[in-house]
Amino acid sequence: MTQQSSTPAPNSPVTVIGLGPMGLALAETLMKNGHPTTVWNRTPGKARNLVAGGARLAASVADAVAASPLTVVCLKDYATLYEVFGSAAGAAAAGRALVNLNSGTPKEAHAAASWAAARGVAYLDGAIMVPPPLVGEPGAAFLYSGPREVFAAHRDTLARLGDPRHLGSDPGLAVLHNAALLGLMYATMNGFLHAAALVGSAGVPAAEFAELAVNRFLPTVVDATLVAQAPDLDAGHYPGGLGTMEMNLNALEHIALTCEEQGVHAGQPLLMRDIAAQAIRDGHGASNYLAVFEVFKKEAAPGAR
Amino acid sequence: MTQQSSTPAPNSPVTVIGLGPMGLALAETLMKNGHPTTVWNRTPGKARNLVAGGARLAASVADAVAASPLTVVCLKDYATLYEVFGSAAGAAAAGRALVNLNSGTPKEAHAAASWAAARGVAYLDGAIMVPPPLVGEPGAAFLYSGPREVFAAHRDTLARLGDPRHLGSDPGLAVLHNAALLGLMYATMNGFLHAAALVGSAGVPAAEFAELAVNRFLPTVVDATLVAQAPDLDAGHYPGGLGTMEMNLNALEHIALTCEEQGVHAGQPLLMRDIAAQAIRDGHGASNYLAVFEVFKKEAAPGAR
Ligand SMILES: NC(=O)c1ccc[n+]([C@@H]2O[C@H](COP(=O)([O-])OP(=O)(O)OC[C@H]3O[C@@H](n4cnc5c(N)ncnc54)[C@H](OP(=O)(O)O)[C@@H]3O)[C@@H](O)[C@H]2O)c1
Ligand SMILES: NC(=O)c1ccc[n+]([C@@H]2O[C@H](COP(=O)([O-])OP(=O)(O)OC[C@H]3O[C@@H](n4cnc5c(N)ncnc54)[C@H](OP(=O)(O)O)[C@@H]3O)[C@@H](O)[C@H]2O)c1
Repeated sequence: MTQQSSTPAPNSPVTVIGLGPMGLALAETLMKNGHPTTVWNRTPGKARNLVAGGARLAASVADAVAASPLTVVCLKDYATLYEVFGSAAGAAAAGRALVNLNSGTPKEAHAAASWAAARGVAYLDGAIMVPPPLVGEPGAAFLYSGPREVFAAHRDTLARLGDPRHLGSDPGLAVLHNAALLGLMYATMNGFLHAAALVGSAGVPAAEFAELAVNRFLPTVVDATLVAQAPDLDAGHYPGGLGTMEMNLNALEHIALTCEEQGVHAGQPLLMRDIAAQAIRDGHGASNYLAVFEVFKKEAAPGAR
Repeated sequence: MTQQSSTPAPNSPVTVIGLGPMGLALAETLMKNGHPTTVWNRTPGKARNLVAGGARLAASVADAVAASPLTVVCLKDYATLYEVFGSAAGAAAAGRALVNLNSGTPKEAHAAASWAAARGVAYLDGAIMVPPPLVGEPGAAFLYSGPREVFAAHRDTLARLGDPRHLGSDPGLAVLHNAALLGLMYATMNGFLHAAALVGSAGVPAAEFAELAVNRFLPTVVDATLVAQAPDLDAGHYPGGLGTMEMNLNALEHIALTCEEQGVHAGQPLLMRDIAAQAIRDGHGASNYLAVFEVFKKEAAPGAR
């Protein structure tokens, strides 16, 4: 670990608070890139390897925050942020920058931005769109929202972690995108896992099915279509010439029935069937499948939770 | 349209029954490849362009089936197959091959195979895994199941439509794979459409979001992970070192809450949350997210429908 303080853009010191799987990956990546790194974690033992690699383990959060112009926080959630940043650490952060990377809701991000503003802390909210092993790899998407000048001041350091993208000054935008992208991730993963369970009911191995389903079917049939048709969503334009919502409801009925025949969980296909049926009730029976977008834009019936 | 009867492998005559968007694409592709093509449809007007291009429009289903050694059927569903193939057409099909490409359930495919066997018809069940515009394009996946010798006899003709894959002699395998792959397709499309609705609630255009979500996030973070981890599903091996089911349940809670804050449909995230919670109740709290596979392999609680 060399400190390249003679290069034109010296590697600025960074503090990392929170050493779960993700915080560890962040600290390791900063150290690998030559940033003097200070760390703190509730369970200090998790810093052992980092310290062996040259990181400094701070005795308190206030001490950790005081060590660097920029502190990256990667705790479980916003509640943990407030718990960890007691009054001493809040005071130590005044005049410094805090980039907070936990998941949460836009309201929570707004509250954290107000909390930081009240303490004179330059605050960016952020979201990490890759798992720990991809931190620092080319193309790893890191999303940020909050004051543009705070982002600009620390962009070079944040670029060590992944490809930094500033979404806008509204601090809630990063976690909103995080929720949207993770929702897409879980939906796709659940779609694959459920499909693997369905063909598995006839003895087909998941590893064999993955080749057809994920390497061939998803990219050519699904992903390419979604990108090509996304402008139609913005235009509310759903021409049904190549397949109508009625045809798709028919297919969803077949899927749900097949689950029942094979003794496999039918919850997801049944919900998707109900959503397509709702789109038809809303007048989209002759539209193409993308018209379910209109159902998603509205709140579900009350009492769904 | 020339009949290349002097070439070593002459283009064998083919009949296409059913001229919805998909049947039209099948007939057009066969004609483009020089197969003498006979067609029939309940609404004969839909054959107009095909006839102008050289196809023969048969006056009855029996007449259509008698014209070719191979008949490709692409109707709405199995019920329509029986409706269209009255006794005359059933008799005309004896000693010929019938490839049926509608969607349905494995039980329905088994019943159709028995129906064909009782009439001396060589029967293959099949499923088309691309939309009409991709029929005949390189890599278009067409799945077949049923007697291997029937597949072998017509493989070259079927290869005109797409890449033919024989899944096994059990006639239900093609529609089972169809249900699984379409379930994955709908889950991914719904995941994207819901995500677009969520960021849309803050004014982000779907076309802008698609670039990040589908071109970058899905292939690198989701698809690659699924293929790499599919062998773990077959082994029932779900190590939680980089992220546990508990952590994922936490993320799903954030997604559902974000939907409620933004006034967007929360049905899908809530169902996914319930499935993750079920996995935890089943003892997978410290496993990674793929352990929801164990939930999907079991029937949902009775009364879900
Ligand atoms: N792992 C991923 O794949 C991934 C990907 C993208 C984003 N994220 C996000 O990154 C954040 C961190 O995730 P993670 O995977 O590192 O694991 P995590 O379990 O979400 O968070 C672990 C961190 O939170 C700390 N913590 C939890 N409760 C605490 C408390 N009451 N007081 C003090 N510290 C507490 C833990 O300290 P101890 O070590 O002392 O328990 C540890 O530092 C989360 O918001 C997650 O959504 C994770
Ligand atoms: N379109 C796609 O993207 C796609 C992709 C893969 C697989 N498929 C499958 O291919 C099959 C055909 O789909 P499609 O898109 O062409 O449209 P479709 O609406 O599912 O089927 C239309 C065909 O069924 C006929 N039909 C319906 N009810 C009938 C009845 N009672 N008697 C006689 N004929 C009847 C129609 O005749 P008329 O013209 O007279 O109405 C037309 O030939 C379906 O099983 C579908 O799941 C479709």
